[in-house]
Amino acid sequence: MKESNKVLFDLVLFGGTGDLSMRKLLPALYQLYRSAPFKSGTKIIAVGRTSMSKDAFLAKVEEKLKQHLPPDSWDLVSWQQFAKHLTFISIVADKTESYRELAPLLSEDDRPRVFYFSTHSSLYSSIATSLGAQDLITENSRVVLEKPIGRDLKTAQSISDQMSNYFTETQIYRIDHYLGKETVQNLLVLRFANPLFESLWNYNYIDHFQITVSESIGVEGRGEFYEETGALRDIVQNHLLQMLCILAMEPPPNMEADRIRDEKLKVLYALEHLDTDAINKNVVRGQYSEGLVNGEACGSYHNEEGVSDQSNIETFVAMKVQINNMRWSGVPFYMRTGKRLPKRSCEIVVQFKEVPHWIFDTPRGQLMSNQLVITLQPDESITLRVCGKRLGPGMDVRTIDLNLNPESRGNKRSADAYERLLLDVIKGDQTLFLRQDELEQAWQWIDPVLLDWESSSSPPEPYIAGSWGPAGSTLLLAKDGRLWFEGIK
Amino acid sequence: MKESNKVLFDLVLFGGTGDLSMRKLLPALYQLYRSAPFKSGTKIIAVGRTSMSKDAFLAKVEEKLKQHLPPDSWDLVSWQQFAKHLTFISIVADKTESYRELAPLLSEDDRPRVFYFSTHSSLYSSIATSLGAQDLITENSRVVLEKPIGRDLKTAQSISDQMSNYFTETQIYRIDHYLGKETVQNLLVLRFANPLFESLWNYNYIDHFQITVSESIGVEGRGEFYEETGALRDIVQNHLLQMLCILAMEPPPNMEADRIRDEKLKVLYALEHLDTDAINKNVVRGQYSEGLVNGEACGSYHNEEGVSDQSNIETFVAMKVQINNMRWSGVPFYMRTGKRLPKRSCEIVVQFKEVPHWIFDTPRGQLMSNQLVITLQPDESITLRVCGKRLGPGMDVRTIDLNLNPESRGNKRSADAYERLLLDVIKGDQTLFLRQDELEQAWQWIDPVLLDWESSSSPPEPYIAGSWGPAGSTLLLAKDGRLWFEGIK
Repeated sequence: MKESNKVLFDLVLFGGTGDLSMRKLLPALYQLYRSAPFKSGTKIIAVGRTSMSKDAFLAKVEEKLKQHLPPDSWDLVSWQQFAKHLTFISIVADKTESYRELAPLLSEDDRPRVFYFSTHSSLYSSIATSLGAQDLITENSRVVLEKPIGRDLKTAQSISDQMSNYFTETQIYRIDHYLGKETVQNLLVLRFANPLFESLWNYNYIDHFQITVSESIGVEGRGEFYEETGALRDIVQNHLLQMLCILAMEPPPNMEADRIRDEKLKVLYALEHLDTDAINKNVVRGQYSEGLVNGEACGSYHNEEGVSDQSNIETFVAMKVQINNMRWSGVPFYMRTGKRLPKRSCEIVVQFKEVPHWIFDTPRGQLMSNQLVITLQPDESITLRVCGKRLGPGMDVRTIDLNLNPESRGNKRSADAYERLLLDVIKGDQTLFLRQDELEQAWQWIDPVLLDWESSSSPPEPYIAGSWGPAGSTLLLAKDGRLWFEGIK
Repeated sequence: MKESNKVLFDLVLFGGTGDLSMRKLLPALYQLYRSAPFKSGTKIIAVGRTSMSKDAFLAKVEEKLKQHLPPDSWDLVSWQQFAKHLTFISIVADKTESYRELAPLLSEDDRPRVFYFSTHSSLYSSIATSLGAQDLITENSRVVLEKPIGRDLKTAQSISDQMSNYFTETQIYRIDHYLGKETVQNLLVLRFANPLFESLWNYNYIDHFQITVSESIGVEGRGEFYEETGALRDIVQNHLLQMLCILAMEPPPNMEADRIRDEKLKVLYALEHLDTDAINKNVVRGQYSEGLVNGEACGSYHNEEGVSDQSNIETFVAMKVQINNMRWSGVPFYMRTGKRLPKRSCEIVVQFKEVPHWIFDTPRGQLMSNQLVITLQPDESITLRVCGKRLGPGMDVRTIDLNLNPESRGNKRSADAYERLLLDVIKGDQTLFLRQDELEQAWQWIDPVLLDWESSSSPPEPYIAGSWGPAGSTLLLAKDGRLWFEGIK
């Protein structure tokens, strides 16, 4: 590779020994190194609370890379080269003086300096303050903020206020890794490059949308974190709303970061306000009780470590959302997410309306109407489901599944979402990151539900671990004569 | 196979030793026998002009089957079983008394009795008259008429009049084997079962259509026939207009034969009349001069056996057709057909309009807008061409080709068009056959062109054998800023 194509940066990774860093961020940096090698001098400085030798840190990273990388991505030579860029220091996040050790590790040229905050968001302000106090924020610095940013509108605004003392908006990268997924970006191309989809993308032709983010795992020892968070803050406020924005947004005039973010923001503004009545009718919260997931017995949420046995925290949310604008009036967006569901998946279904009149012998009920099925997890794919003639005499109709993402199943490796987004941060492209107003508007819309649930005396609806959530979730669609999508058979 | 699923019929094949019978009809009957075996007693009586022993006839059929069947379709046992149903007699078409020998060969029960006229259409009336005179036409008789039926409106009407003395309209099967193709029927399903296509199938979303039927062969020793026919009568009046009708027709209320034929007829009524001015502007006729096809030197049309060296008969036609109705006003249908073109193909292109505004970096010119490409020859396929994101960083757009006819490339054998249509005749289903009014309306629309060319002193535009026709054909589209489709790359 030509030297000029290599990237040069300093990256300071707060929460550098944490779960996300080990499972996602360091593997993504390693993959990035393999596809776009770093210029010599590029530094990745992992910051952790507990002190650890560099060798111990590297040994841990090596172990985790082997565990979390796809088997064909690991190779010793790359690792040894990559490891030369890695270092580790121990800093106590809220002790300003401990940041002094960071300064000599950073480069003095004008390379991008990325501060990645992969910690609890309650620490964001103090980290920024300390970085500012130590004069570590250069003009070419960027800060990446992991979700959830805050726990409601007020805390999110407070973080924004603090951050804005040290960083301009163009320096702040609020990450939602779902936006880094190849398939989400392909969705933008499909929507805006194809008259076939662009022309039909409105209330005239689309019956409804479904967005499902399901996990089979429980809280995995992070009960304490989850007790403060819940599914609404953990998944709905960010991932689900972002997917909804990508599906519902108007075509932007161009692909500039702010023009796309303008359009996403407009969707958030148009979301129907959730008053108590709407919450009762259109929002379902659930909490898992004991059951079986993939044949394995699981305890209830109340039995998880760090969870109060009185806890009313939701591990499942289903919502029916209306967008009050010219394009989407009357078209429901159904969203659901939960833990201890039957499988890990992220699936978006665009359900087109049926043809108004059916002229074939094959009973219509056997067939799906046209659907676009976008799968983000476990594997990425986009499938267009259409009706075609079954080969043979007569005119039997059958469903044909068309693969709209053919490369993703081939040999070409699709970059991990974090890899893509880290490169965007280094390059200074904010397109796939949230702007402050988007973040705050999402909280503003979510806040009434948080308040309602906090003040409510009734507990979440229980559901058996390994089921698709409480009965209320099925009912939410059944009331409208619809069913949750059960996957492509 | 259950006895009740087997078919029972008598079929009398006029022109039984001719090219079409040997190349298409007898192979189709053999295939039909293999997929839907005949009840014992089913009779196929080939009728030829020259006398020939049954054994000589069977030997010829066996030779031709081996030559024209797909290699995996031939097996000796099937052939021996099938051959038991075959017989041959010699009849002189216009000598009534020679039909007497036919009577004792026919069964006396009420099974379907199919008379297949695979002769020059000038003989249809006399064959029908003789069958009538010999009292061979039962209530359960059907007659199949091969195209071209007549050589203009007047001769077609005269055939109709004669036929109607002996057969009711429900007994007459005017065959256009293009309608028997799996993919043409799939086109009906795609259009009318998918909101995705049904909603876009009009002047708002479709830019234009192209229909190409190309042959690489010349007149192959049939110069005498071709001198009376030409490309307009041989291909445009039937195959091309039928394809156009299937593409342009309104959705019928149901799939009954007459409801579909009503809608096709309405398209023919709506074709813009071709006056002299329109013919000059929108119709191109060509005739091949010497050249190279697939690397082989070919003489000019004038050098073909049986062709006058003054002949003005066209071996190529290109047309721009307008349909004057609410759905298609302003949407051109470009059609072309010719002999001695670079390859044998039949391809329909549905070109959707572009999205009104382009927001991606990839230059739009490198991409096709959405297209539906329907290939009938040499192999059948339907491809939907859409734009998707190219895997990788950035937002590069590329074309993705989606196969809408997946079974046709698999192991399942697709029935030959004639096999399908012969079974329809035996079953009494007229859906895929032309009604008298359709046939006559097609001639009515074509007649002014025939007249204009007959009275014209200027010759057809020459084109080099092996090229895509005369310059006028390219210009026809170039005037509208368009190009003929060059195939999926």
